[in-house]
Amino acid sequence: MIRMHVINGPNLNLLGTREPTIYGSTTLAQLEALVRAHAAKVGAEITWVQSNHEGVLVDAVQRLRTDADCAIVNLGGYTHTSIAIRDAFLAAQVPFIEVHLSNLFAREAARHHSVTADLARGVITGLGHVGYLCAVDALVAAHGAS
Amino acid sequence: MIRMHVINGPNLNLLGTREPTIYGSTTLAQLEALVRAHAAKVGAEITWVQSNHEGVLVDAVQRLRTDADCAIVNLGGYTHTSIAIRDAFLAAQVPFIEVHLSNLFAREAARHHSVTADLARGVITGLGHVGYLCAVDALVAAHGAS
Amino acid sequence: MIRMHVINGPNLNLLGTREPTIYGSTTLAQLEALVRAHAAKVGAEITWVQSNHEGVLVDAVQRLRTDADCAIVNLGGYTHTSIAIRDAFLAAQVPFIEVHLSNLFAREAARHHSVTADLARGVITGLGHVGYLCAVDALVAAHGAS
Amino acid sequence: MIRMHVINGPNLNLLGTREPTIYGSTTLAQLEALVRAHAAKVGAEITWVQSNHEGVLVDAVQRLRTDADCAIVNLGGYTHTSIAIRDAFLAAQVPFIEVHLSNLFAREAARHHSVTADLARGVITGLGHVGYLCAVDALVAAHGAS
Amino acid sequence: MIRMHVINGPNLNLLGTREPTIYGSTTLAQLEALVRAHAAKVGAEITWVQSNHEGVLVDAVQRLRTDADCAIVNLGGYTHTSIAIRDAFLAAQVPFIEVHLSNLFAREAARHHSVTADLARGVITGLGHVGYLCAVDALVAAHGAS
Amino acid sequence: MIRMHVINGPNLNLLGTREPTIYGSTTLAQLEALVRAHAAKVGAEITWVQSNHEGVLVDAVQRLRTDADCAIVNLGGYTHTSIAIRDAFLAAQVPFIEVHLSNLFAREAARHHSVTADLARGVITGLGHVGYLCAVDALVAAHGAS
Amino acid sequence: MIRMHVINGPNLNLLGTREPTIYGSTTLAQLEALVRAHAAKVGAEITWVQSNHEGVLVDAVQRLRTDADCAIVNLGGYTHTSIAIRDAFLAAQVPFIEVHLSNLFAREAARHHSVTADLARGVITGLGHVGYLCAVDALVAAHGAS
Amino acid sequence: MIRMHVINGPNLNLLGTREPTIYGSTTLAQLEALVRAHAAKVGAEITWVQSNHEGVLVDAVQRLRTDADCAIVNLGGYTHTSIAIRDAFLAAQVPFIEVHLSNLFAREAARHHSVTADLARGVITGLGHVGYLCAVDALVAAHGAS
Amino acid sequence: MIRMHVINGPNLNLLGTREPTIYGSTTLAQLEALVRAHAAKVGAEITWVQSNHEGVLVDAVQRLRTDADCAIVNLGGYTHTSIAIRDAFLAAQVPFIEVHLSNLFAREAARHHSVTADLARGVITGLGHVGYLCAVDALVAAHGAS
Amino acid sequence: MIRMHVINGPNLNLLGTREPTIYGSTTLAQLEALVRAHAAKVGAEITWVQSNHEGVLVDAVQRLRTDADCAIVNLGGYTHTSIAIRDAFLAAQVPFIEVHLSNLFAREAARHHSVTADLARGVITGLGHVGYLCAVDALVAAHGAS
Amino acid sequence: MIRMHVINGPNLNLLGTREPTIYGSTTLAQLEALVRAHAAKVGAEITWVQSNHEGVLVDAVQRLRTDADCAIVNLGGYTHTSIAIRDAFLAAQVPFIEVHLSNLFAREAARHHSVTADLARGVITGLGHVGYLCAVDALVAAHGAS
Amino acid sequence: MIRMHVINGPNLNLLGTREPTIYGSTTLAQLEALVRAHAAKVGAEITWVQSNHEGVLVDAVQRLRTDADCAIVNLGGYTHTSIAIRDAFLAAQVPFIEVHLSNLFAREAARHHSVTADLARGVITGLGHVGYLCAVDALVAAHGAS
Repeated sequence: MIRMHVINGPNLNLLGTREPTIYGSTTLAQLEALVRAHAAKVGAEITWVQSNHEGVLVDAVQRLRTDADCAIVNLGGYTHTSIAIRDAFLAAQVPFIEVHLSNLFAREAARHHSVTADLARGVITGLGHVGYLCAVDALVAAHGAS
Repeated sequence: MIRMHVINGPNLNLLGTREPTIYGSTTLAQLEALVRAHAAKVGAEITWVQSNHEGVLVDAVQRLRTDADCAIVNLGGYTHTSIAIRDAFLAAQVPFIEVHLSNLFAREAARHHSVTADLARGVITGLGHVGYLCAVDALVAAHGAS
Repeated sequence: MIRMHVINGPNLNLLGTREPTIYGSTTLAQLEALVRAHAAKVGAEITWVQSNHEGVLVDAVQRLRTDADCAIVNLGGYTHTSIAIRDAFLAAQVPFIEVHLSNLFAREAARHHSVTADLARGVITGLGHVGYLCAVDALVAAHGAS
Repeated sequence: MIRMHVINGPNLNLLGTREPTIYGSTTLAQLEALVRAHAAKVGAEITWVQSNHEGVLVDAVQRLRTDADCAIVNLGGYTHTSIAIRDAFLAAQVPFIEVHLSNLFAREAARHHSVTADLARGVITGLGHVGYLCAVDALVAAHGAS
Repeated sequence: MIRMHVINGPNLNLLGTREPTIYGSTTLAQLEALVRAHAAKVGAEITWVQSNHEGVLVDAVQRLRTDADCAIVNLGGYTHTSIAIRDAFLAAQVPFIEVHLSNLFAREAARHHSVTADLARGVITGLGHVGYLCAVDALVAAHGAS
Repeated sequence: MIRMHVINGPNLNLLGTREPTIYGSTTLAQLEALVRAHAAKVGAEITWVQSNHEGVLVDAVQRLRTDADCAIVNLGGYTHTSIAIRDAFLAAQVPFIEVHLSNLFAREAARHHSVTADLARGVITGLGHVGYLCAVDALVAAHGAS
Repeated sequence: MIRMHVINGPNLNLLGTREPTIYGSTTLAQLEALVRAHAAKVGAEITWVQSNHEGVLVDAVQRLRTDADCAIVNLGGYTHTSIAIRDAFLAAQVPFIEVHLSNLFAREAARHHSVTADLARGVITGLGHVGYLCAVDALVAAHGAS
Repeated sequence: MIRMHVINGPNLNLLGTREPTIYGSTTLAQLEALVRAHAAKVGAEITWVQSNHEGVLVDAVQRLRTDADCAIVNLGGYTHTSIAIRDAFLAAQVPFIEVHLSNLFAREAARHHSVTADLARGVITGLGHVGYLCAVDALVAAHGAS
Repeated sequence: MIRMHVINGPNLNLLGTREPTIYGSTTLAQLEALVRAHAAKVGAEITWVQSNHEGVLVDAVQRLRTDADCAIVNLGGYTHTSIAIRDAFLAAQVPFIEVHLSNLFAREAARHHSVTADLARGVITGLGHVGYLCAVDALVAAHGAS
Repeated sequence: MIRMHVINGPNLNLLGTREPTIYGSTTLAQLEALVRAHAAKVGAEITWVQSNHEGVLVDAVQRLRTDADCAIVNLGGYTHTSIAIRDAFLAAQVPFIEVHLSNLFAREAARHHSVTADLARGVITGLGHVGYLCAVDALVAAHGAS
Repeated sequence: MIRMHVINGPNLNLLGTREPTIYGSTTLAQLEALVRAHAAKVGAEITWVQSNHEGVLVDAVQRLRTDADCAIVNLGGYTHTSIAIRDAFLAAQVPFIEVHLSNLFAREAARHHSVTADLARGVITGLGHVGYLCAVDALVAAHGAS
Repeated sequence: MIRMHVINGPNLNLLGTREPTIYGSTTLAQLEALVRAHAAKVGAEITWVQSNHEGVLVDAVQRLRTDADCAIVNLGGYTHTSIAIRDAFLAAQVPFIEVHLSNLFAREAARHHSVTADLARGVITGLGHVGYLCAVDALVAAHGAS
């Protein structure tokens, strides 16, 4: 089984109730269930994390080094500012895909820049929960190819 | 009674001892007492929060959705950088007023931009503790008008 | 009695009829009455000025040096461009509070910068006519403290 | 009859004598006569204003709300800086066309930005006095269509 | 007869069906008919071009040198980026007027800069099809005056 | 069957031979076969286009209005500069997903900005040919949901 | 006699009392007397103007065309913003020297740019009232040389 | 024989007649003859291309991979904007020299940046047709050295 | 004994394993031992802190006010963004030296700016663990001199 | 006698022959004679320096500390770039006036910024050799006043 | 014989040993010999200068006015910063070609801007010593044509 | 013995007398003695250079290639501008540490950028003469490790 961590950042705990016209009505628990089910089918085992705390997310990324083969990350608001999390990815050296539920490029300018995107294998924005499932597929495909 | 949260960010716990020529000699506990007394007179009940942790503040803002009618916020240094707290306000959808004890516009350039000010109903800077009391009045007035 | 001047800039004469969704339906005359009444209660005497002419406003600010103890100013569109009025404040050396009825930070970028804000004791935006009353209170409080 | 105001800004009183290679040799009085004659033919009645004073121009734009159906404006040097006049147009809510005799885009960079152009129905530059006549036609056509 | 070319750029072939709230419901064929009729009345003969291809438009502008006395151009999206077309105008040395149906200054920032406007005799934006007719008049007037 | 167009821009015809460390060794024909096969399974019918010519791509995007339900687009080098193609998408009003084989954010700065990304439903970068298949899935899912 | 106008802008009426550490204790009337006396000695006749109103200053500059041989101008705060006064100088076509009492380059950045300096024959800053006398000498010398 | 392609971009077909003070009076055909003659002497065989169409130029650069040992390119206006042609060079992996007839650095700022210059072996500007001959020599010299 | 705190920010817990070509193979525990030994020799007593949490670091800096005579700080990724920690230093008023193991100026641009460096007594970058020892020496020397 | 140094930078040795339309036909030796004569009359003794070498000019500025009461400096091209000379002035602590023969503000943008102007008592540009004489007068006047 | 000066700036004395992968293994003396031999053949006589001192280079450029018909210059690091040398070229009024051995556009951004390139007849970069020979040819050709 | 050069730039000859509140009262000769004594103890032999001339400093850096094992450099004002010295370091290929006596980050913005810092092994600012001694230690330690 491929060990895949899914790391969710601030405010994703509100999914389903927060700005539903932007983020949809699926809750984070429902999203987790969807991802777990899909991952199981394609041979990946999910560890699921969510936190509003930057430091907790740094810890979670650091753990990738020893506990995971790859990761899916949606850092929410920290996407645009956290050099600390960027450094944790530089240390972790694990392939990851950055996912955003909404299309960041259609929103305010401060959301157009990600401090981790250049370290990611790829970035998926705007596809809602489908984006998470695609990221699972892409990481499994890459794992097989490496 | 109007449920009003007052959320104070990093270093406000030092109020009264920190840079008194800028921030005055009133302590945070004294400020809290002043605000509670004034709020009681005009029909508002205060929940008071202070934290140096960005994640704790994200949590506090998220709670506004269910526990508060409005809020006064002074995010200290996170005012200028925290997209994560901005997102929490976008989710919370509760009217709030941003308050700063000192006049940010008379200080270094990095303090002139706030990432939450456009979401606030209004902003008060430089009026010291009077700014908190004004914010109470304005939120009560707006609550009556809505 | 504290001598307090209230200086209103261009287009404020249209208050109540101009863009009511932004500025409310209170007219300038009604605002003046509210401010005068409140000031009287807290021991301040109001001199009220409104002009669309930058030069007239420069004159009004210059008069603060000899005729006033403090001032409330809402310079409208000149807020963002008038170095001439800034210079008059530098010469006047009287404490003043800058007030804007709407929340400038929620409007177009050209309204986010004020050329006088760093000289003010404080700035209040977005609180509508409550902002003027808060400014009266803050100036009276500061006058007593000095 | 359509009530159409033509508002001319600073230095246009010198038309015909000022930099004739740029602005031509027609005087402002001759331009006014041409515009009045053309307007009369297509059913519009002209009110003509010229001032070098920003405040007088703010007043003139404010009057559009009650006294005019539409306007042609050439704000001269205030085109590039006057937020105060911009605010007056926001208040006036009357369709207007911005006209410049010379082609601003072929001149120094400071003349390439207009603070009112986004509020205008359209902008005409570089066509000399023909630009004023075109503006009359376009406003009459739009008046009929609305 | 004055030989006048009208050169229309990308997406103008969709006129009348594309974003009608911005561009109106007149089709390009109808616009062509209007322009031809008006030109005939004032002594100009129209050659009409439309292409989505930058190279075809470069060719069309190059032909102005030998085949036309003047031109009206609406380069659509190439207005903001095509140095190649700018160079063709520099080579062609024929007076032209730049026309845009919508008011570019009221749209996204990328549409505020034109790489050909400084070479044009003048620019007309936001007047819809009236802009084309005005351009015909202005070019005929200039032709007589030169 | 859902009608889905796949529009590929300049240099994608070289896929498989061009910079294989960045773009992989799959040829465009092989990619087309993979996409067609996958689309057929999920109920979509593919129309496949590739061109090095900006104008041809404008034409292809314009055709979406009448011939397609949705689109996948990889505009290559035009991604960063073509306002003309942007305008065609504004006219077409068809949901589309922007795909890039490599992770643009890990490459030179000129590739970090897309002039069409804000119009897309979403963007996928860096996932190689998996990105195309994900885009098919996401468009099919969205088609069912609308 | 050389006809020389001296045009003083906003806040110069406060000279002697305004920020004396920057501007000195000489009043404007005393400065005028010094300049008149010096000018008389070297064959120039002074017309002296001061206004806080931009429009009045535009008028004063326009009058240079017919009433003066040259000018000394200190536009105060309008130095940095007034395109309208710049246009009046472009129209006036009279040689002038720009003078500032304080050294603008040692003050805040907004005072480092002048919109008229490129039109002046020269600029003198920081020399206090000596700057006015030097300007008289330089204009007289240039008048003799032309 | 060294296979050397010379690729000329938009408006170079007008050489000799277009802005002769900048570009000289030699026509493109004469330039071609000069280059062919010189190349023959030093052992190179010329393939000559000119097009106003960006897509045609992309095609021409792509062909370098299989048909040429090296290239001389003068992309005209596309020099400054075409990421698509840049990508074709990245794919072609053939040494090339960028040539411009005029000195771009002495012209408007938009001509100072080239999107292909960093990929070239070298750049020659301002030497007129001598620049093409130098480029032939330099490529032949480099071919011998490699 | 001089009370000296050493405050280490995010990802320094990984020292020795994280990117050893940049950061060396010494672990944080080994670095701590080296610093403690060196400090003991020169008369300083070390309090050692490491955290990935910005709030914990704010707390640690606040404690300097009462518990320390001076500090050495390596804030890792928060160096570049944390105004909150900057504010804590402004409050703490204790001399400190900023240390970075790698030479930040030889790395990506986002690491070239520190929001605390102007408050520090000095900055040392690129000297590896020698930097910490130098900082001990410099603080001891300064303590003796004050 | 007031000891006054006049320090002239690169290319001033060519005065009189270099670009006479900008710099006039007076040679540096003639200028020196004019300045010496004028200085003698008002009680100042001139030491005259010219060099094209930045290091020689640093030396000359350093000597001001011990050998001069004040200075006139025209640093030519080093005006815009030499932090080394700026540092020498910071060390010298002698009042000086910066003089430029031509009006720098009417020339290319690179000449609009001076790295020493904020340290000078004042700046004179565009007055030709009169500027040097004015500087003598102003320094003598300031010397008497201090 | 054409009198041609070749002026080489800082660090070119190290040619052949300095960074040979960028600059090649030819020494400056060998380059000089190559240039002298080539020049002799085409009728030019070389004066060769190299210095690491900016002032010496200013002197060398000044001498061009009287001692040379034209020049080849490679200013090394001063290319990007020396306004003083730029001024010397403005004074010298002699045609010159700017040469760089490496392709500056493929190196760090600080090397992309030259302060003398707009004054040159042309610029050659990246052709190694061939660039010097081409410059000789181009200057000889231009000398014959003038 | 390790051969270590210490290269001091402009104005450091004034150390001890120049701005003592910033640079301290130790003279350059005293600093040299301190560094020599410390170096002798740890096995390094010092060559000491100071010059105000950029060219002399370029020469000194070039000599590092053959005469030194490592270097300490404090380039004073040339730190921020000298690409020529940067190039000499690129050629010299010797490890060096950049030292500044004052904390550049606490001074004006022009001192925040160094054109050599990315080439250095490390940078030390603000530690006064201790910085030089630390640099000696760090270079000796690195020499042993390599």
